[in-house]
Amino acid sequence: MLNHKDFRKHAHELVDWMADYLQDVENLPVKSMVKPGEIYQQIPAKAPGTGESMQQIMRDFQQIILPGITHWQSPNFFAYFPANSSYASLLGEMLTATLGAQCMIWDTSPAAAELEERMIEWLRNLLGLPEQFTGAIQDTASTATLTAILTAREQATHYSSNLTGLQNTKTFRIYCSEEAHSSVEKAVAIAGIGRENMVKVAVDDAFRMNPEALSVNIAKDREHGFTPLCVVATLGTTGVTAIDPLAAIGEVCKQQNIWLHVDAAFAGTALVLPEFRWMIAGIENVDSFVMNPHKWMFTNFDCSAYFVRDKEALLRTFAILPEYLKTESRGSVNDYRDWGIQLGRRFRALKLWFVLRNFGIDGIRERLRNHIALADEFARRIEQQPDFEMMAPRHLSLVCFRYHPEHITNEDEINKLNTNLLKKLNATGRVYLTHTKVGGKYTLRVVVGQTYVKKQHVDAAWDLILQTCLAVTV
Amino acid sequence: MLNHKDFRKHAHELVDWMADYLQDVENLPVKSMVKPGEIYQQIPAKAPGTGESMQQIMRDFQQIILPGITHWQSPNFFAYFPANSSYASLLGEMLTATLGAQCMIWDTSPAAAELEERMIEWLRNLLGLPEQFTGAIQDTASTATLTAILTAREQATHYSSNLTGLQNTKTFRIYCSEEAHSSVEKAVAIAGIGRENMVKVAVDDAFRMNPEALSVNIAKDREHGFTPLCVVATLGTTGVTAIDPLAAIGEVCKQQNIWLHVDAAFAGTALVLPEFRWMIAGIENVDSFVMNPHKWMFTNFDCSAYFVRDKEALLRTFAILPEYLKTESRGSVNDYRDWGIQLGRRFRALKLWFVLRNFGIDGIRERLRNHIALADEFARRIEQQPDFEMMAPRHLSLVCFRYHPEHITNEDEINKLNTNLLKKLNATGRVYLTHTKVGGKYTLRVVVGQTYVKKQHVDAAWDLILQTCLAVTV
Repeated sequence: MLNHKDFRKHAHELVDWMADYLQDVENLPVKSMVKPGEIYQQIPAKAPGTGESMQQIMRDFQQIILPGITHWQSPNFFAYFPANSSYASLLGEMLTATLGAQCMIWDTSPAAAELEERMIEWLRNLLGLPEQFTGAIQDTASTATLTAILTAREQATHYSSNLTGLQNTKTFRIYCSEEAHSSVEKAVAIAGIGRENMVKVAVDDAFRMNPEALSVNIAKDREHGFTPLCVVATLGTTGVTAIDPLAAIGEVCKQQNIWLHVDAAFAGTALVLPEFRWMIAGIENVDSFVMNPHKWMFTNFDCSAYFVRDKEALLRTFAILPEYLKTESRGSVNDYRDWGIQLGRRFRALKLWFVLRNFGIDGIRERLRNHIALADEFARRIEQQPDFEMMAPRHLSLVCFRYHPEHITNEDEINKLNTNLLKKLNATGRVYLTHTKVGGKYTLRVVVGQTYVKKQHVDAAWDLILQTCLAVTV
Repeated sequence: MLNHKDFRKHAHELVDWMADYLQDVENLPVKSMVKPGEIYQQIPAKAPGTGESMQQIMRDFQQIILPGITHWQSPNFFAYFPANSSYASLLGEMLTATLGAQCMIWDTSPAAAELEERMIEWLRNLLGLPEQFTGAIQDTASTATLTAILTAREQATHYSSNLTGLQNTKTFRIYCSEEAHSSVEKAVAIAGIGRENMVKVAVDDAFRMNPEALSVNIAKDREHGFTPLCVVATLGTTGVTAIDPLAAIGEVCKQQNIWLHVDAAFAGTALVLPEFRWMIAGIENVDSFVMNPHKWMFTNFDCSAYFVRDKEALLRTFAILPEYLKTESRGSVNDYRDWGIQLGRRFRALKLWFVLRNFGIDGIRERLRNHIALADEFARRIEQQPDFEMMAPRHLSLVCFRYHPEHITNEDEINKLNTNLLKKLNATGRVYLTHTKVGGKYTLRVVVGQTYVKKQHVDAAWDLILQTCLAVTV
């Protein structure tokens, strides 16, 4: 078993491995090439009886585990949305792990609670959110959106749903666009409201929620005896980064007295740029808001910032006080276990503090603008190539496109062609892209958002795409 | 902003800081001494415009943040339950942060999914859980217990509650002992069942759930038209580490066809010791089970192992498949986003693998037995001192006691005395203890469970307690 002296030695060795890895990561196959079961079969079925050396463990890590890693920190990673790290964030994570503090309440690490409070303020200011907003760092947007829906549920039942349950209550309805994230549906199910009561509002031709359709949905629901509870608007949908029109949606919510939650998990980071503040016109009618520094703000997963206008509503929904958690400081401090679902909490504010200070606002802006410019350049290449087709307007750093040679007109064939193209591209190991469907059409997504992505990586991806298209068949 | 070369340099410096910290941590005040607002006031209200150097940030970390940390990794930490780290775990966390992989599905890092599968098997085997159990690593027991209750809810409604909600359904009842953790109550509220439908079953004089009382509660509920849904049994309650009689509870659940979830968050680790396997007599009637390697198994928070007998029930409750998450491997691999609430997932299996291999089964057993022996010795001291009183039977590594000089007979005075004693003890900075109430009586808790705690630390704590008692008044 490692002792203190061993630890120092191994940690130094590991740092060199880490630095080498990050230096070389762009040369590794981005998406792991292993077959199902390949890693599993190499791990023994049982834990060893006696301890093994770190040399052995690290050797197995490199030989067995590493080939099974999809390299999210590669600048050739263009898939999903990024889950970025950065050098500063990594140092913060090392410290968080070292302190090993369980930050459930103020007493169990006052610095964690108070730094979290400040970081929420820093972010609020950076993103241009209203002064009244306060909040907490959660693990994921899934959890934050669930938190929002539960708070809306409690408020709408005059704080009785936690106590008496949803049996024999009104039937609530939740609204989001057809393009909203699956976590909304999951949250609606968990909260006991029922997926059938999630209304998918129609979108316009840019895949944005149609506020008139929302109004009609709500009116119809009221007619049928349903109780509209909450609208989830999305800034930057997962499929195509559509930006729901917040101002118009907010007006509807205000008139109808409905909780408005905003899922800006990815695109929220762009609010650091003044030129994207238009996305939150109408924020005055928003009740809660989530954005993930762990996506595009260079901060290791997990770090999801949840903001809420009515702090009391949040606390009344989640506060619980068993004897063993009573403290003298209670009431004069933030006990963040009352701001969400889980009791246990990591010291997540630390890495965010490291990132925001080491990058500075200018540093973050510069990097974001660079990503967006690279995405724009990529989009223009798509537009200029007659064999390619843009599948949605380019917002921020996501480009949605497909390969569509003029001579192929059958939609099934085009879908097949693009499915094969994606498979071939990812099989090269030189890029990792993922897909979505746009109006039933198989669509490739390129997100230019990885922390250390440069023009050369986007250029190489483009060349690879052109080259691979030549070889792809239906 | 840090570049690659800077990172290597700073990471090496940080490793020396980390090693020094862990070497010195026992000399730091265990519980932070800061006043509310003290840290907050030292952090500027806004993020800096331009980036700052790591030297500046690390200096502030040491000067501002460190005094606000409660040192969970100090061997003088006897509070709550431990949230242990270890050298091997820490190295694992460094790697997880470096890879920065988002392990939501198999494709996004096959090694993470397959190592997680193996780690669940290793733990199952280590703890003596049934072969049919499978599961996933979750963040916290709060989440795991919520997962269990949601799965029970879905199964009991023939998989309709997710779809149609709980409006107009039967009124479900959840049972746990009076001593169960607050996360059960929180989960019942979140799931839309209502706290009023959580029945707190009476306990015996060792604070264990009374299975006869459970039977009576269930029968009475059925008479009144309620639908018994789930029993949450606790192995190792937070207050006094009471062990609910699983065999008898399991019989009731079997006869009544009720989901049985076991919260063994802390005490589950003791199942690695054959002499504690009696705790899971009756496991054949258990449907789900949670234990936290991040408590007493030397693995950094967060790492909570959730086991379930009927994998299909779990997947039918949580599976969701939007287009952008469809993969070719789907169906032949474990996509762990379908095994719980959140979509996003850290690579948590890695640190657990590091710990289990570096310690080995023998190493874990040795350390646990040592902790338990130290707690036993401490308990015997309490018993032998006429001015002290044991407040609950000593189980595992928790000792519940109070100071009770013969001449004080008024219960309020004794409570006050012990409140003051705890405050004085923690104010020395040399130990950190927390409290609970046992039958309304203010009770001090000493948990001997921190990874690197030795006899000398427990001896010093005992001496300090004796010394502090002399000075404490009502």
